Amino acid sequence: MEDKLKQLQTMLAEVSDLNAAAALLGWDQQTYMPSGGAEGRGYQLGTVETLAHLKFTSQEVGKLLDELQPYAVQLDPDSNEARLIKVTRRKYDKQTKVPSQLIAELAQVTAVAHQAWAEARVENKFAKFQPHLEKIVELRCRYAELFSPYDHIYDALLDDFEPGLKTAEVKTIFEKLRPQQVALVRAIAEKPQVEAGFLHQSFDEQKQWDFGVHVISSFGYDWKHGRQDRSAHPFTQSIGSQDVRITTRFNPNFLNTGLFGTMHEAGHALYELGIDPLLGRSPLGSGASLALHESQSRMWENLVGRSLPFWEHYYPHLQQVFPAQLGNISLQKFYKGINQVQPSFIRVEADEATYNLHIMLRLEIEIALIEKTLQVKDLPEVWNTRMKEYLGVVPENDTQGVLQDIHWSGGMIGYFSTYALGNLVSAQLWERINMDLPNLSEQIRKGEFSTLLSWLGEKIHRHGAKFEPQELIQRVTGSKIDPAAYVRYLKAKYGEIYQI
Amino acid sequence: MEDKLKQLQTMLAEVSDLNAAAALLGWDQQTYMPSGGAEGRGYQLGTVETLAHLKFTSQEVGKLLDELQPYAVQLDPDSNEARLIKVTRRKYDKQTKVPSQLIAELAQVTAVAHQAWAEARVENKFAKFQPHLEKIVELRCRYAELFSPYDHIYDALLDDFEPGLKTAEVKTIFEKLRPQQVALVRAIAEKPQVEAGFLHQSFDEQKQWDFGVHVISSFGYDWKHGRQDRSAHPFTQSIGSQDVRITTRFNPNFLNTGLFGTMHEAGHALYELGIDPLLGRSPLGSGASLALHESQSRMWENLVGRSLPFWEHYYPHLQQVFPAQLGNISLQKFYKGINQVQPSFIRVEADEATYNLHIMLRLEIEIALIEKTLQVKDLPEVWNTRMKEYLGVVPENDTQGVLQDIHWSGGMIGYFSTYALGNLVSAQLWERINMDLPNLSEQIRKGEFSTLLSWLGEKIHRHGAKFEPQELIQRVTGSKIDPAAYVRYLKAKYGEIYQI
Repeated sequence: MEDKLKQLQTMLAEVSDLNAAAALLGWDQQTYMPSGGAEGRGYQLGTVETLAHLKFTSQEVGKLLDELQPYAVQLDPDSNEARLIKVTRRKYDKQTKVPSQLIAELAQVTAVAHQAWAEARVENKFAKFQPHLEKIVELRCRYAELFSPYDHIYDALLDDFEPGLKTAEVKTIFEKLRPQQVALVRAIAEKPQVEAGFLHQSFDEQKQWDFGVHVISSFGYDWKHGRQDRSAHPFTQSIGSQDVRITTRFNPNFLNTGLFGTMHEAGHALYELGIDPLLGRSPLGSGASLALHESQSRMWENLVGRSLPFWEHYYPHLQQVFPAQLGNISLQKFYKGINQVQPSFIRVEADEATYNLHIMLRLEIEIALIEKTLQVKDLPEVWNTRMKEYLGVVPENDTQGVLQDIHWSGGMIGYFSTYALGNLVSAQLWERINMDLPNLSEQIRKGEFSTLLSWLGEKIHRHGAKFEPQELIQRVTGSKIDPAAYVRYLKAKYGEIYQI
Repeated sequence: MEDKLKQLQTMLAEVSDLNAAAALLGWDQQTYMPSGGAEGRGYQLGTVETLAHLKFTSQEVGKLLDELQPYAVQLDPDSNEARLIKVTRRKYDKQTKVPSQLIAELAQVTAVAHQAWAEARVENKFAKFQPHLEKIVELRCRYAELFSPYDHIYDALLDDFEPGLKTAEVKTIFEKLRPQQVALVRAIAEKPQVEAGFLHQSFDEQKQWDFGVHVISSFGYDWKHGRQDRSAHPFTQSIGSQDVRITTRFNPNFLNTGLFGTMHEAGHALYELGIDPLLGRSPLGSGASLALHESQSRMWENLVGRSLPFWEHYYPHLQQVFPAQLGNISLQKFYKGINQVQPSFIRVEADEATYNLHIMLRLEIEIALIEKTLQVKDLPEVWNTRMKEYLGVVPENDTQGVLQDIHWSGGMIGYFSTYALGNLVSAQLWERINMDLPNLSEQIRKGEFSTLLSWLGEKIHRHGAKFEPQELIQRVTGSKIDPAAYVRYLKAKYGEIYQI
């Protein structure tokens, strides 16, 4: 049986190598590729990804999984070997259910849809994107139907990004969260607002870069296993388990973009780099889910990077870097400024208090589209109505509204909720961490993060994708995903800032 | 039959895509990869290259080639389709003759040998490399034997880099060349030497970079389809036919390294970018051979970049960039300095008059090793004896002698002669070009290169690998590779510089 396991591991390692090659092709496309390489890059990515898929879904893998089944049940269920077989079986069964015809169709439709979306956005014309989105919804419904019987048709879509999580669970979580978050935003709106204009000044890009590098180096980001580059849309990319790179975008007239973006991506990278190297070159060698990943990026960005103790340590340094811009801004004023709450149209610019509301709106729309209780043509109206209800603002046009996100044009229906779930998990973990490490604030106040990183490494990172997200969170915090901690966190933080 | 052809083209396109992915993995390894990624990168390259090889040598490709044979003979033999079938057949037959066991063995041996070579070089201890080189010679002999019967056992090795070229041809070429080149070097040695010390000053790297970019942009290097980066060893890499990148190394205390290195690599890149896009994603979508490639890089580096007309145009600009270093150096003095002839131990630093002698020495040694008329243990002695005979200098140690090149440690026996052949071809083409474009010198004197590039594009570049090197040179110049033009070129140039 060890032989069969070895064979399976070898095949999965080759799939991982192909995925790493595809990852590099993607990274390069967004960082250094000359524009003329775009067409060829499309072919290269298509070929490499298709080969990886064919290898992973091959009959040989299926046969090995079947043969290994009796062996797997004798193993310690938490062992790497047992989990490898379990997770691979799960992915294999899911992926082999999807006809290659459907995959090809979605690839074709989204290639055109992406272009249409980009044009619709520029021209502020939802009608241009509408027929493409209709096709995408149709194809994603057909995909979801493949997994019937199901509790909810949306389950299979959510499961692509959050293995094992059910639509009903997310609905319950969000229904508990929404009224509390809406109430908080309203309460804040009635209070005197904080000033944040000083963040919108000219900040030299190289100095922003250097400060960010300094911060994430002290977080523990290891440059022997990573690097930072510029890209239009920041992202983190694993190219094999020992090479995890981040990209950052800087705005020369707004400090937050580069500063918090760098910490955010470093959070993703620290997760990937913390995975047990023994899980490398296998389906277990990545984060447990997108929500778990986002819990890490948001923790470093917000719970650490937007906290008062953090800036008690770093603000004097930042003031030295930008004396003309920040020399006369007090620590308190700076801290409040970077935590300003301001309902806006654009998700990616949203603050901690409003962010999840953007997500809930999208999730509700997605579920209704897949349930066919909402038609694509009615999207703009529904979007604007909900915006008014949740955030109290209405976008002036569809470009600032329903057309703002790229996800749907790429077929990614099922993805959005992971952003909000990540926020919730970050606070849940944070409460646990502060119980285990009672002097964490003190350490952060000294710019020391090694104990925090070790805790995360031990409890979360090293396990890679061995456990489904709910199982992992349950193991670490004692309960599944629950919005209570995040609500407590928001109320404490903004209660103090806005004197509520 | 068009269907079968289409099937073959699709398979070959996928092989090309995998090769492009491997090319990017290699490019990144030498430019931006963090050091910790090295082990994973080895796996990734291994997997992608093995898959490309398996796909190319698959029975399916063999069957399609068999089926297409009767169709191919009816086609215009110069058509893309006929040549695709012919070139693919040739490569397929060669590659399928090699047992995968031998490929794996060579990969293992060279991985260890490379390390041993690097250590031997640092420690100046040939004995450390010797047993590894013995194994490599043995494996390359076994490889060559697979192609028996042959005219000469070395033929198969040469053919890997120069399709169709025979050992006997190269020997004849070099036997004609060697006495003339040795005589020239001796004649130069007896004349008053030129001064070149001014090239060894402090030259700001960014200014070197900018000047090089300016020059190769005017050559016609298109930055929409390329880019330049730094690497320890300069190289050119095609990542698909529309993305051809160069790397350069700069020496802050010596102008030539970056300056002529940039032009050299741009010459390679212009070749690849000039290939007919219809040949992309196929075995025809690269240069005809290494010698043809080197003829292009050496032409732009030497026949253009080390010529007087070129510097009549660019020298005032270079003086403006480096006024303190070059302000008092006349054009004539500069021109002579960059063309200084000085026999030395190191091939990569050799001038035009001595370079080929380094190559001939290596070729003779390689042939003798493969013929088994020379034993590896005797290499250092033979090396030094020949150096004395050809160049009049003897290296002080093996690091400066037989250990200087990386090639053998990687199993690349058969490669070296292509460097010298490239020089010869560059001069042969240059004579032809000057007949076709009588006012070429005038254009170069104005910094205009578009007519030259068009000529090269029309006669050489666009054909890609459709023709074997000898066939292509015959078509363009009326004769096969012949050293006469290069000897004429050297005699004219150095006769004038050294007043011979």
